[in-house]
Amino acid sequence: MSLSMYDASIPVLKRWLQNLAAILKKAEEHAAQRKIEPTVLINARLFPDMFPLSRQVQIATDQAKGCAARLAGIEIPKFEDTEASFDELQARIAKTIGFLDGIQAAQIDGSETRTIVLDLHGGAKKEFLGKDYLLTWVFPNFYFHVTTAYAILRHNGIDVGKKDYLGA
Amino acid sequence: MSLSMYDASIPVLKRWLQNLAAILKKAEEHAAQRKIEPTVLINARLFPDMFPLSRQVQIATDQAKGCAARLAGIEIPKFEDTEASFDELQARIAKTIGFLDGIQAAQIDGSETRTIVLDLHGGAKKEFLGKDYLLTWVFPNFYFHVTTAYAILRHNGIDVGKKDYLGA
Repeated sequence: MSLSMYDASIPVLKRWLQNLAAILKKAEEHAAQRKIEPTVLINARLFPDMFPLSRQVQIATDQAKGCAARLAGIEIPKFEDTEASFDELQARIAKTIGFLDGIQAAQIDGSETRTIVLDLHGGAKKEFLGKDYLLTWVFPNFYFHVTTAYAILRHNGIDVGKKDYLGA
Repeated sequence: MSLSMYDASIPVLKRWLQNLAAILKKAEEHAAQRKIEPTVLINARLFPDMFPLSRQVQIATDQAKGCAARLAGIEIPKFEDTEASFDELQARIAKTIGFLDGIQAAQIDGSETRTIVLDLHGGAKKEFLGKDYLLTWVFPNFYFHVTTAYAILRHNGIDVGKKDYLGA
């Protein structure tokens, strides 16, 4: 017995995407109640040179679909990165979850020793074994962006808590 | 081939504790250069009812030592949660890494089906299989607190970046 690559990746990414969707739903409702213009939250940042909420959600979904596709050895679905409303961010998360749902365990299992090559900014490449890609790239980045989305909303006074993040 | 519980946990937790230590070192240096009183950063929060930087670091280390000890089936080292300076936070991280270094792979491997019981606030208990404890409790919580520590420092204008978080 040990961890299968599928069990270690797809269901976990799916669960935290669902948690992120639930947090964004609460944020949208809170904004409506308080008559806060939704784009104020969508464009909110923790510091001027950090990404806004919308981009945090885009990158979190990129990490999830990139992980699923790369480990399965199939093409990564391309999204346009134009989301500018809560509805559009929800749709992006739902599309990502739909993509994860279409991946079978047999496509992912065995990918621990598959070579994964990432194209980074500026033409650089980064090469990993599948297991190191999941553990030292996908998880730290995925949780970074989900947490930063949460932190942006908390910093703006949205009434969400750690239970929403954990989805327990 | 699949993921071993040791490979999936101890080296990864250790690496992000080292990244967190390096980020705190930069923050301390930045504070000194700018004549910022270090406790201003140590006590900084993103919102009044969120934990300050010091507590984020404490909980990140708690997740790491708790994970290592619970998966190995040994006692969790108890720290006093009194850190109030960068030096003390660094010492706590170093102690945690020292504890992780003393754990052998054979103590952790096979723990995927071990029953882990967490004592939560208010007397509640939460039970997991070892693999679910690692994937759906330790990682989401550990990265949450490392990321929030980073976000607190970024929000306060400390010159760190995603590369410091990833430690690449």
